[in-house]
Amino acid sequence: MTTLDAPPTRTEHDSLGAFEVPATAYWGVHTARALRNFPISGTTVGTHRSLVAALGAVKLAAARANHDLGLLDDRRYDAIAAAAQEVRDGALDDQFVVDVIQGGAGTSTNMNANEVVANRALEILGLPFGSYDEIHPLDHVNRCQSTNDVYPTAVRLALVGAIDRLAEATAALADSFARKAAEFRAVPKIGRTQLQDAVPMTVGQELGAFATTLREELARLADSRMLLCEINLGATAIGTGITAHPDYRRLAVQHLAEITGLPVIGAGDLVEATSDTGAFVQVSSVLKRIVVKASKICNDLRLLSSGPQAGLGELRLPARQAGSSIMPGKVNPVIPEMVNQVAFWVIGNDLTVTMAAEGGQLQLNAFEPVMGHGLLQGFGWTAAAFDSLREMCVDGITVDAAALAAAAATNAGLATALTPLLGYARSAEIAKAALSGEGAVRDLALATGVIDPVVLDALLRPETLANLDVPGPNVATRE
Amino acid sequence: MTTLDAPPTRTEHDSLGAFEVPATAYWGVHTARALRNFPISGTTVGTHRSLVAALGAVKLAAARANHDLGLLDDRRYDAIAAAAQEVRDGALDDQFVVDVIQGGAGTSTNMNANEVVANRALEILGLPFGSYDEIHPLDHVNRCQSTNDVYPTAVRLALVGAIDRLAEATAALADSFARKAAEFRAVPKIGRTQLQDAVPMTVGQELGAFATTLREELARLADSRMLLCEINLGATAIGTGITAHPDYRRLAVQHLAEITGLPVIGAGDLVEATSDTGAFVQVSSVLKRIVVKASKICNDLRLLSSGPQAGLGELRLPARQAGSSIMPGKVNPVIPEMVNQVAFWVIGNDLTVTMAAEGGQLQLNAFEPVMGHGLLQGFGWTAAAFDSLREMCVDGITVDAAALAAAAATNAGLATALTPLLGYARSAEIAKAALSGEGAVRDLALATGVIDPVVLDALLRPETLANLDVPGPNVATRE
Amino acid sequence: MTTLDAPPTRTEHDSLGAFEVPATAYWGVHTARALRNFPISGTTVGTHRSLVAALGAVKLAAARANHDLGLLDDRRYDAIAAAAQEVRDGALDDQFVVDVIQGGAGTSTNMNANEVVANRALEILGLPFGSYDEIHPLDHVNRCQSTNDVYPTAVRLALVGAIDRLAEATAALADSFARKAAEFRAVPKIGRTQLQDAVPMTVGQELGAFATTLREELARLADSRMLLCEINLGATAIGTGITAHPDYRRLAVQHLAEITGLPVIGAGDLVEATSDTGAFVQVSSVLKRIVVKASKICNDLRLLSSGPQAGLGELRLPARQAGSSIMPGKVNPVIPEMVNQVAFWVIGNDLTVTMAAEGGQLQLNAFEPVMGHGLLQGFGWTAAAFDSLREMCVDGITVDAAALAAAAATNAGLATALTPLLGYARSAEIAKAALSGEGAVRDLALATGVIDPVVLDALLRPETLANLDVPGPNVATRE
Amino acid sequence: MTTLDAPPTRTEHDSLGAFEVPATAYWGVHTARALRNFPISGTTVGTHRSLVAALGAVKLAAARANHDLGLLDDRRYDAIAAAAQEVRDGALDDQFVVDVIQGGAGTSTNMNANEVVANRALEILGLPFGSYDEIHPLDHVNRCQSTNDVYPTAVRLALVGAIDRLAEATAALADSFARKAAEFRAVPKIGRTQLQDAVPMTVGQELGAFATTLREELARLADSRMLLCEINLGATAIGTGITAHPDYRRLAVQHLAEITGLPVIGAGDLVEATSDTGAFVQVSSVLKRIVVKASKICNDLRLLSSGPQAGLGELRLPARQAGSSIMPGKVNPVIPEMVNQVAFWVIGNDLTVTMAAEGGQLQLNAFEPVMGHGLLQGFGWTAAAFDSLREMCVDGITVDAAALAAAAATNAGLATALTPLLGYARSAEIAKAALSGEGAVRDLALATGVIDPVVLDALLRPETLANLDVPGPNVATRE
Repeated sequence: MTTLDAPPTRTEHDSLGAFEVPATAYWGVHTARALRNFPISGTTVGTHRSLVAALGAVKLAAARANHDLGLLDDRRYDAIAAAAQEVRDGALDDQFVVDVIQGGAGTSTNMNANEVVANRALEILGLPFGSYDEIHPLDHVNRCQSTNDVYPTAVRLALVGAIDRLAEATAALADSFARKAAEFRAVPKIGRTQLQDAVPMTVGQELGAFATTLREELARLADSRMLLCEINLGATAIGTGITAHPDYRRLAVQHLAEITGLPVIGAGDLVEATSDTGAFVQVSSVLKRIVVKASKICNDLRLLSSGPQAGLGELRLPARQAGSSIMPGKVNPVIPEMVNQVAFWVIGNDLTVTMAAEGGQLQLNAFEPVMGHGLLQGFGWTAAAFDSLREMCVDGITVDAAALAAAAATNAGLATALTPLLGYARSAEIAKAALSGEGAVRDLALATGVIDPVVLDALLRPETLANLDVPGPNVATRE
Repeated sequence: MTTLDAPPTRTEHDSLGAFEVPATAYWGVHTARALRNFPISGTTVGTHRSLVAALGAVKLAAARANHDLGLLDDRRYDAIAAAAQEVRDGALDDQFVVDVIQGGAGTSTNMNANEVVANRALEILGLPFGSYDEIHPLDHVNRCQSTNDVYPTAVRLALVGAIDRLAEATAALADSFARKAAEFRAVPKIGRTQLQDAVPMTVGQELGAFATTLREELARLADSRMLLCEINLGATAIGTGITAHPDYRRLAVQHLAEITGLPVIGAGDLVEATSDTGAFVQVSSVLKRIVVKASKICNDLRLLSSGPQAGLGELRLPARQAGSSIMPGKVNPVIPEMVNQVAFWVIGNDLTVTMAAEGGQLQLNAFEPVMGHGLLQGFGWTAAAFDSLREMCVDGITVDAAALAAAAATNAGLATALTPLLGYARSAEIAKAALSGEGAVRDLALATGVIDPVVLDALLRPETLANLDVPGPNVATRE
Repeated sequence: MTTLDAPPTRTEHDSLGAFEVPATAYWGVHTARALRNFPISGTTVGTHRSLVAALGAVKLAAARANHDLGLLDDRRYDAIAAAAQEVRDGALDDQFVVDVIQGGAGTSTNMNANEVVANRALEILGLPFGSYDEIHPLDHVNRCQSTNDVYPTAVRLALVGAIDRLAEATAALADSFARKAAEFRAVPKIGRTQLQDAVPMTVGQELGAFATTLREELARLADSRMLLCEINLGATAIGTGITAHPDYRRLAVQHLAEITGLPVIGAGDLVEATSDTGAFVQVSSVLKRIVVKASKICNDLRLLSSGPQAGLGELRLPARQAGSSIMPGKVNPVIPEMVNQVAFWVIGNDLTVTMAAEGGQLQLNAFEPVMGHGLLQGFGWTAAAFDSLREMCVDGITVDAAALAAAAATNAGLATALTPLLGYARSAEIAKAALSGEGAVRDLALATGVIDPVVLDALLRPETLANLDVPGPNVATRE
Repeated sequence: MTTLDAPPTRTEHDSLGAFEVPATAYWGVHTARALRNFPISGTTVGTHRSLVAALGAVKLAAARANHDLGLLDDRRYDAIAAAAQEVRDGALDDQFVVDVIQGGAGTSTNMNANEVVANRALEILGLPFGSYDEIHPLDHVNRCQSTNDVYPTAVRLALVGAIDRLAEATAALADSFARKAAEFRAVPKIGRTQLQDAVPMTVGQELGAFATTLREELARLADSRMLLCEINLGATAIGTGITAHPDYRRLAVQHLAEITGLPVIGAGDLVEATSDTGAFVQVSSVLKRIVVKASKICNDLRLLSSGPQAGLGELRLPARQAGSSIMPGKVNPVIPEMVNQVAFWVIGNDLTVTMAAEGGQLQLNAFEPVMGHGLLQGFGWTAAAFDSLREMCVDGITVDAAALAAAAATNAGLATALTPLLGYARSAEIAKAALSGEGAVRDLALATGVIDPVVLDALLRPETLANLDVPGPNVATRE
């Protein structure tokens, strides 16, 4: 499970004693112990590129602040800063070997980062791994820091990246629906409520609503992004800033903002900020709402494309793979089905985050690692699913406009349009008659003798019925 | 919120001091304080008939055991037993006034029970309320007991009743589906996988599967029932039986079994049994699985009855109310929709139970009240929903057999039946041709010239396609 | 269950036929059928005061708009408006008898409202119940409306009221914590991370963090409030506004804003707004985050007050009721325990809302009733729980300042303060020695001979260790 | 993402047309399309060893049945059987490249298996990849099968393996607790309810309860195992067995039982068995209960080991890694914290499974892949976490027996033992006095003058107080 049996090794020490570490590993004793303690998921922290990048940024910002304050000399600073930059850029991802499921509130991940930066810095200086008298993972790399401010800060920055990626995918998906809405703007169809035929609308209105509802999420993601940019760097262990230079916090936050280009600010109440994981709950909720909407949309896509003969058959999704190992010619809506499953998974992750947040105690939440993993995974899967949904499905949707129009024109639901003229009870009789096959709604309405044919035909024009002038997906909306 | 302002009152005392209690209340100071502390849901414990009945049974069993052991004299025993029996029978439900959402691990409910039994016993003896020197809620009624064994025992017994009620409703619902399955046994239709047309089957097979899947739940409910009948009565505070007579436990469990007629047994490890709420998690899971199945069934009922024109339109659910305030003649599947919502609610309750169980600490789970309420509510709602689903919906389902048969006969899904003869690739061509309107599957198959018409017609008989001899809902099944 | 057997009755008709209604009921045939269909929870819509009030407001706004447009004559308008106002004011709550768990997407609730307004209006006009030729529940009261715009609008307005109520309770609870934080501002204690002794802080910082974290929620509630004020009134059945006068929507929204005094605006994309329930998911998430925080706080309160002898024993919660029916003198943290359970319940409701939202199909979500009930219940319980937590618990918290200070002064965690001077490894040795009883951290540090005693004593001052100048709960914060 | 750009390729065809496949891949066109459609998680089906093994077993059983029936000649059978055996044994895991998150109800996984078996069989016969005229993935390898019976059967068998692995880990963990319970059998301590001091018990009783509660799970796992062994092999597409030889089902199930050595039986109602995913909900619930218990246990371990100075400090967990990058000497309960997080994750997965099960429609649940992945992951993580908990934590627990005994002897909770002699009220006064420091419970009790000193001392013996004769973790229990 660990690589500890791989010769040769070097010996490192911590407060628990000596421990063997692979000679070529940039990581050290703390990481090695964590490998033995947490052989759980097989997924390493290094697989979360954005998290490792954020750790690099934090270590770099801290080093700059420590250098400014004279707590780090030029030689050490240059080496540490160069190493941290490499971590940021991705050159050392394979050294972040700790399991994503780990106890210790992220301590092992922070230790892993400290050790990798220290040993890479030592290497830059031409010194052997483990020469911690020269550059120490804790006394130098971690100076003025605690896992308890470094780790949550890094997870937040990583999530900002994940949000940006999902926002892009969401906007593109919404645009795809909007293009289809424009394409089918005036194709009439019957709308349905509670799965029962209701009243006329157009395919454009239906698909346009998907665009609108997804676009609303962009504002929610932007809200979360701002919340996540409020960090507790400088809080150290529990928010009191113990061991940190009085000016460290201000400088470190400034450097981090500059390094990342993000509107990073320090939290007002650092004790609260260090124990609270509300921002993770919030961003998880935002992600959950997005996938709830996506799942509803995909349920609709599957339903509207059901058939081809014994279903609703209104939309035709592009065929992407043979649908069955036994039924020749069958094609299934596999892309929306995949999105549904991503949604169910993400909703599960949201529960994980909720329970982890609720279970936090006193001055620190020990369960941030599982929150971070669940969120980064959830954002990543959702963005990938949205890209696939757009490219492999929505962009290729087609309809049979004539068939839809014909079905809409003969639906008994047209009777609703008569109620302002005939009242509810009389219109209900016409609807019943139409359903019993006694004639079309138009003819039955005319037969009442109380509606002028010209008025009636104007009333029953598809454009009028669907009220196409009602604002659509491009209208600004508060929500 | 409380009735404390209602004159006149009597003064009672507890270890916190004096407190006013309504003069006519059977309950006393402990209950009165709880009323002030927990004005949360407005729903009283007394609304859970089965829980109050179970409390009565436990108090009666305890009194009998104490009497057997000489810890309760005849006069007190007779009065207490009579009062407990009245609690069991429902005469004093309105005296169980504590909110279902309460802190204290059920202490307030147990106190409420002790006080009601004590004061009713005093009344039977012709003594005024509050004459606790004669019959004391704790020293006499609660003798050899603790909330921590009384309350979980009562909740478990109440759940046994709830299980029995739901089992009855589930069996009746399954029978209703089975009757419909028999009625439509040979009505052919096209089966669907992933909402796409698949291969032929019959309406009877589809509805019969609902019967089968519900009947499987009866075995799961029976399992839970047995687990719930393992109780910790005699454990007192933390499972060590402190303050209880050495023979009390055995006697009390025996009496309880006799009083309730249930296969009640004592838990093997009382310390474990007092802190563990695994049985509630288990029974909640069983209930969850039932509503997941019910929700899936109702989703199918709504889908299969969609239309009437622009939907699948295979099943006709009986009309139960006008479906719209605006659309005349519209009728909606309101009964299945109600069941879906009960399912969503119960699944939410299951999460509540899960979190409450996980949050228990050390020798007792303080959150049993919310588990008990959630479970009793969930079982009750589900049973009511199943009754409504059966009476108001399933019993009245009809189909248009001719239309279904016609649709099944022309579906391209028949091509699957050809694969043993023609292979997958060639059958796929026929399916494609059928979908393009080039002819029926039968004719296209004949045109290949490789299948004998007699063989083909035998193959395409609806009974053969649906394989009606496959065992159906009445077959015994392990699951 | 229903009152249908209570003589005498009147006969009403709908499209399904004749149905008997209690002669004295303001409600009519549609409500009567719903009573028979949904005997599930026993909780009526009328128990949600804010929902009934909102329904009254919507009916009033619609009547005004219809009157403006000449669709309702003065006589009818005056009667309908008066009746709607009574609904708004609460005079007719007992007439809203439909079960909160109902199929039909709220149709039964809207029908109930229409019937109550119609019959009360008829009564005002001196006409008998059921004289629907004069004032018809659908053709007059429901004119230009559909359940599908009336009901979601009413639920949203009801939730705005629920938000305001919870915001008030949350602010008051936060203020209570802030007062306690000020009271114990400089009382030193040892902070804990991962339940292990960490570094010094003060009781004020700990309780102040609770104030901060709760105050952050006020901004989140305000966000939700704005989203909920975006309504789909005028959308009618599916967002196309079918049957509504072209000017109705603008007028109705204006009137509703005026009647309620809320910043109500119309949604931009009415088709989207009619099918989407994202706002309910969002507000449910906000509520969930609040209870997650509250549950964490209550977990801490219970933990910090554990003991009194064999626990942490740092906080003393006021005694509110005897804690045990068996253990004399025991007092439990029953108020926080109640809050925990409310939190678990609300988190369960959030799941219910999530599943209901995900399950919505096509142009309408049929499951809005369960969402509305779950949310209104959750907000109400949480507000009640917060009031109890404040009044019965937080306001009365006390501490033993001297004991806390003494314990903090001898804790080995002080060694952390030495790391900037001695480095991590050497400080670890001192910590170990202190834990082994070899002396206090201060003395062991002095013994190293490398720290000036004056510097050391300055470093180890409680105010310095806790860094009391760090901003606290009154600082503005983005989150 | 895919390897499609890697030269050279071979061209394969399916009903959608031609598609390039890497020349060296055992998989073919169907797999290749799936790779393009589902680039979601980056985790391949091949990482689930037990699932691939189960697919191999099913393909082998099917081949044997087809051979028995003369549907497969000896040459093809020998090659297919050998290839399937290799799949079963793990030699081809790297060829199962489809993403675990996939649409299509497992079709891509079944197709992947068919293609790998076909091409490996061709290779065995010395034929080039893609010579499907000789051995066809569908017509030969998949003969008499459908994804809809193959895939669920394979997932069930894989879960049986996962159950066996977890049962082993659970039993070992329970044994570890039982050993510790025996070691600390008579070490007295104070028990706590609702985090408040309650009454005496022993450390052995506390840890023994953990053993008992975990052992109960073994019976639950065994139940699930039996349910999962009921399979729908032979059901083909929707349960009607279309395209399968009449004797295939019986033979295939027999062969599968023989190959796997499991008590596999065929389901009674194949239509039900093909659409129902209740067994996955059931087994997920069982796993959830296990992790709920484990999380509770780990919460207790963390709480009981809190300190070392300012906590409960009753248990000493072995130190496994330095606890902090800033606080020297700090050691945290990282192993239990890891278990908590695994529990939160698994509970999230259970919700995913629940939603996926609820979302299934008509004759097949399209969401089985996410259920399978979530369950296999959850079982695997839990087993790994239990091993780590046992080896790295429980096995090394120590206590300070003398300190615990001293604390127990002076706790005011002893007053409870007096109630049978003194009554509740008088005992409460003694408890209060003891808490106020007026003396020990024993002395205060003696001072009442009503208890004989000999009786009192017998009563207050730790063994008596803890009632060590109460049955412990080795007692048989129904639950």
